[in-house]
Amino acid sequence: MLKKDCIQIGSFKRGKHNKITDVHGVTVGNVTLNDGEVQTGVTAIKPHQGNIFKEKVIASSHVFNGFGKTTGLIQIDELGTLETPIILTNTLSVGDCYRGLTTYMLHSNPEIGETTGTVNPVVAECNDMSLNNIRKMNIKSDHVIEALYNASADFEEGSVGAGRGMKCFDLKGGVGSSSRIVSYSHGDYTIGILTLTNFGKLSSFVMNGDPIGERLKKSLEILESESEQGSIIMVVATDLPVTQSQLNRIIKRTGVGLSRTGSFLGNGSGDLAIGFSTANKGKGEEEGLNILHSIPEADLDQAFEATVEATEEAILHSMQLAETVTGKGGRTLYNLQEVVDKTE
Amino acid sequence: MLKKDCIQIGSFKRGKHNKITDVHGVTVGNVTLNDGEVQTGVTAIKPHQGNIFKEKVIASSHVFNGFGKTTGLIQIDELGTLETPIILTNTLSVGDCYRGLTTYMLHSNPEIGETTGTVNPVVAECNDMSLNNIRKMNIKSDHVIEALYNASADFEEGSVGAGRGMKCFDLKGGVGSSSRIVSYSHGDYTIGILTLTNFGKLSSFVMNGDPIGERLKKSLEILESESEQGSIIMVVATDLPVTQSQLNRIIKRTGVGLSRTGSFLGNGSGDLAIGFSTANKGKGEEEGLNILHSIPEADLDQAFEATVEATEEAILHSMQLAETVTGKGGRTLYNLQEVVDKTE
Amino acid sequence: MLKKDCIQIGSFKRGKHNKITDVHGVTVGNVTLNDGEVQTGVTAIKPHQGNIFKEKVIASSHVFNGFGKTTGLIQIDELGTLETPIILTNTLSVGDCYRGLTTYMLHSNPEIGETTGTVNPVVAECNDMSLNNIRKMNIKSDHVIEALYNASADFEEGSVGAGRGMKCFDLKGGVGSSSRIVSYSHGDYTIGILTLTNFGKLSSFVMNGDPIGERLKKSLEILESESEQGSIIMVVATDLPVTQSQLNRIIKRTGVGLSRTGSFLGNGSGDLAIGFSTANKGKGEEEGLNILHSIPEADLDQAFEATVEATEEAILHSMQLAETVTGKGGRTLYNLQEVVDKTE
Amino acid sequence: MLKKDCIQIGSFKRGKHNKITDVHGVTVGNVTLNDGEVQTGVTAIKPHQGNIFKEKVIASSHVFNGFGKTTGLIQIDELGTLETPIILTNTLSVGDCYRGLTTYMLHSNPEIGETTGTVNPVVAECNDMSLNNIRKMNIKSDHVIEALYNASADFEEGSVGAGRGMKCFDLKGGVGSSSRIVSYSHGDYTIGILTLTNFGKLSSFVMNGDPIGERLKKSLEILESESEQGSIIMVVATDLPVTQSQLNRIIKRTGVGLSRTGSFLGNGSGDLAIGFSTANKGKGEEEGLNILHSIPEADLDQAFEATVEATEEAILHSMQLAETVTGKGGRTLYNLQEVVDKTE
Repeated sequence: MLKKDCIQIGSFKRGKHNKITDVHGVTVGNVTLNDGEVQTGVTAIKPHQGNIFKEKVIASSHVFNGFGKTTGLIQIDELGTLETPIILTNTLSVGDCYRGLTTYMLHSNPEIGETTGTVNPVVAECNDMSLNNIRKMNIKSDHVIEALYNASADFEEGSVGAGRGMKCFDLKGGVGSSSRIVSYSHGDYTIGILTLTNFGKLSSFVMNGDPIGERLKKSLEILESESEQGSIIMVVATDLPVTQSQLNRIIKRTGVGLSRTGSFLGNGSGDLAIGFSTANKGKGEEEGLNILHSIPEADLDQAFEATVEATEEAILHSMQLAETVTGKGGRTLYNLQEVVDKTE
Repeated sequence: MLKKDCIQIGSFKRGKHNKITDVHGVTVGNVTLNDGEVQTGVTAIKPHQGNIFKEKVIASSHVFNGFGKTTGLIQIDELGTLETPIILTNTLSVGDCYRGLTTYMLHSNPEIGETTGTVNPVVAECNDMSLNNIRKMNIKSDHVIEALYNASADFEEGSVGAGRGMKCFDLKGGVGSSSRIVSYSHGDYTIGILTLTNFGKLSSFVMNGDPIGERLKKSLEILESESEQGSIIMVVATDLPVTQSQLNRIIKRTGVGLSRTGSFLGNGSGDLAIGFSTANKGKGEEEGLNILHSIPEADLDQAFEATVEATEEAILHSMQLAETVTGKGGRTLYNLQEVVDKTE
Repeated sequence: MLKKDCIQIGSFKRGKHNKITDVHGVTVGNVTLNDGEVQTGVTAIKPHQGNIFKEKVIASSHVFNGFGKTTGLIQIDELGTLETPIILTNTLSVGDCYRGLTTYMLHSNPEIGETTGTVNPVVAECNDMSLNNIRKMNIKSDHVIEALYNASADFEEGSVGAGRGMKCFDLKGGVGSSSRIVSYSHGDYTIGILTLTNFGKLSSFVMNGDPIGERLKKSLEILESESEQGSIIMVVATDLPVTQSQLNRIIKRTGVGLSRTGSFLGNGSGDLAIGFSTANKGKGEEEGLNILHSIPEADLDQAFEATVEATEEAILHSMQLAETVTGKGGRTLYNLQEVVDKTE
Repeated sequence: MLKKDCIQIGSFKRGKHNKITDVHGVTVGNVTLNDGEVQTGVTAIKPHQGNIFKEKVIASSHVFNGFGKTTGLIQIDELGTLETPIILTNTLSVGDCYRGLTTYMLHSNPEIGETTGTVNPVVAECNDMSLNNIRKMNIKSDHVIEALYNASADFEEGSVGAGRGMKCFDLKGGVGSSSRIVSYSHGDYTIGILTLTNFGKLSSFVMNGDPIGERLKKSLEILESESEQGSIIMVVATDLPVTQSQLNRIIKRTGVGLSRTGSFLGNGSGDLAIGFSTANKGKGEEEGLNILHSIPEADLDQAFEATVEATEEAILHSMQLAETVTGKGGRTLYNLQEVVDKTE
């Protein structure tokens, strides 16, 4: 299998592990279901290790193409805060993950629904029906809780968790991550990306500027999707001190990285970004006035570029690290490197 | 109890039953849970009696204040279509309703997840924790299916279905409906509204221009909510031939009706509208080009005014028709007329 | 003529002069053209008395109905800052006001277009064609500069400045203002509103909950507009420490106040709000990190309610204080009190 | 100079002239000011050759990054129609162009401001201060009228019209155009793009997948911009029968093409798209109901891809065809081919 570091997008310095978990406090957990026609899972992203409901983080979302079923975005955009981990799964299991995440939050916050109002569970999805019998709705709410307890800074990428059954450019997609360091006079910060990739047709695939997809398609007999029915979820984590509005501007740049891999944001694709910043933790919870630190607007350019790079690289990682999987109806989706090796 | 027709908002002609189901084909079903500290339920709205997944209807949504957990709005806004019934419930049960609605859709559409991609379940909620032990998550996915099978043109309003535990202006809220007829040279059409009301503080309550809430508050010892933690869901149905954009403009006017009852769109309130038009049924499903009928833009004024009236009236109906309920912790929310009678 | 204080909306304390200029530093200037069929003008609002381009203020906008030609909103919403005064005028004169405001800004900022990029002039408008020969485009760029030099805390309301030719509920509209004080543990703050009113049909007019418009229409022979071709611009100023996102939430509540006067946001109406906060002046301009003060989200409820009240009252002031004007084609629009007096 | 056809992006068939004017009825006119430190101009795009105010076209806009001063977008997005030609110019001349375009519209439509309300002039801009003394505001309203009378199907690209002073990737930018044919069972249609390019830093420039900018920067001593203060306006014309919402989805894909040239949507860049479809001309003007033809949603994928290709190519054309210009302060921006020739 291709090693993660054989692909080098752009010029920014990478974080220590080149993963979203390079942002201090962020952890990721996977639960993978791998049993014949059941090829699916759950990926959980925790923004920090404290009580997230009590120490909300600044957050924002952006929908590039809304053919998707995500929950929680409306409240993120109204209040600018995230108060739960983010759960990724397959499309028809959003409801069960909502239940699982709610259960988890109620357990650690006895005041929810008693004295504080409710909680806003954030669940996003892609449709893994190519490999997974999605109609069976195999994800149970306990899988969410398991993924949350599994979460660590050192997590697997590729055909794992929610990425198990995903297809990207007609090859195997899944979970991919990357990170970048931005440096200012006021400090160094990390921007980390985790993508769940499930979009694109082979002929469009561009790897680091090289339109390799066209060549692969010509030399292979891979049946190309008739239409884009995929999706991509791009999660952006950072410790950069930003306002909700600045964060929104940053996460919109994931679309630039996505575009460079060959996506054209197809009609049937649910393409969206969710971001959070851990820098002003606890916003909105203090007595008196909140004190919010934020970078000057002109400093955003560096964060924009770093986000573009890390997104493109995270998408490529999701393919490099995704092992070949055979699932529903005996259909197989191949690892990118395997396909490259066959054709060269 | 106050009769529905004692309140007359505005000057437009009402539909036959003054309900959302005056729009031909629309039906509504309730499942009500009434057992001590369990005071909650499900309300299901079917846009028409055919296969909704195959005959999608034009749809749009608008968020006035996004402190809410609704699912399905992103795709409605991207594609401009609704492909499932709309389910209303309590906040923490959105996941179970998502599962229930998905199960219902899979049952009648074996091609979902096999040949057609997935389905976009639309579930909206308010927080009924005043009367209901919401943490128990008592709604099960079967309740959704039951509500859908219950659905009929002649449905109950008030403290029923999702409205069972709702609180409006510190009195009993719930499900309320109303309708209006708009007349043009090209025909007569119906605009129907169904509201799930769970917002407001008593002192703000205005009934048909009369600031009755202030008076009620002075003469009663009702403890006013310290802050708005409510919500309102406003569902707009019509057979008016409109584009997605025109429909969006229409449903935004529900906010005007809402404002006139005394709401100020409180910080903690999830205030939103979801609308659909049955007039161009099947949009997006034909071979070749779609033929779409739509009213001239200038004709919208009449639809705007009718929507304002019907929304204000539907909210008042939700209170008039909501019987007094005692729930969690022995707390009681009173029917509006009872309170009026006591103070006069 | 009706005195300004005969109308009392809501319960919040008013600012000293009950005007937008109660927000410290804010000034307003009018230039009025009153010559037969020329009944129009310019109203200029300065957010503070320093160099606005160098000391930008946090700003936001919201479009309720976009039948309008305002400039500058896109950049306000992207960057969250206002860097010029706000100019109000008639629809066809937006270009000349853009030139006038640009000239003014270039004069006091020699670095614009040399070392700092350009400037974002904010100009909003209503259509005063009922009384004004708008096709003549009588506003010249010098009128903008004159209005800016005229600006003071003590400004006139009614049929002055941009309000000269405006029509509201088929009566005389114009410029109206109001203010409210909000009180928190962390301090008292002012919210000021200035409205330019040019919307509505007489029969819809509601004064402080009283549907007076219907009665006036019955007893008078006022020809009602066939359709809404009006607009309203609502400018919100405050010294409340808020983020761009919080400010956006506040200014959206102007729509609630507007709704209570009888507007239904007609198809042909350009209804929008522009707001700014002077509390974190200079945002984005410091070296290193910005320090931003903001109120907790829950504190917004009070600001929401105060905004609703002040908006409703400012609209009523625009009518109370607007003297009767005869303009183009000998058409006359009457002061509200005159009409009330005639019918009682 | 590089010939236009030496660059071939993607696989769709081009229109006859590979310009926006391949869409039947569309014409473009330039007025160029070339006099020492005055290097600026006006570009006018007419959607069709009839009376645009009377025969409005379906239209939509999308803002990728709102550091820009465009007029008219709010109304386009509310009503979904364009009722004037589109004018492009430099930032500080938006006001004069608004006046010029208004004058032009009033001249051909005596009913504006008398019986029909006003008109919504659409003017977009980039900041050409690198080469042009923008503070002089040299564009007069007559230049707009001249550009409109100049308009023809066969127009010049490069350092002409509004493109005269523009800078793209630190080289000479300007006006560039391209077109694509999309084919369906129901017919062939054209998508045409015109871009006004003024963005990017040299090291980011990617030509058809090749990161040529980095190499050029190393071998040349071109001083790179410290920050993005540019912009890009992307105008999309088509005869594809689409609703406003579908058109909006199409024009959002210009961002994908833009991303592939190396833009990262810099903080200081006003990046936006305006599109129109001539297919349902006259929408909203008929008696009775409008009949609107639209393609099925799934047909959009082809339109999306064609838009991506044409946008990328139009941007490259703007550079290929832009002659070297020396302007303000003796500063010179070079044609791309000249620079390539020097370094190879």
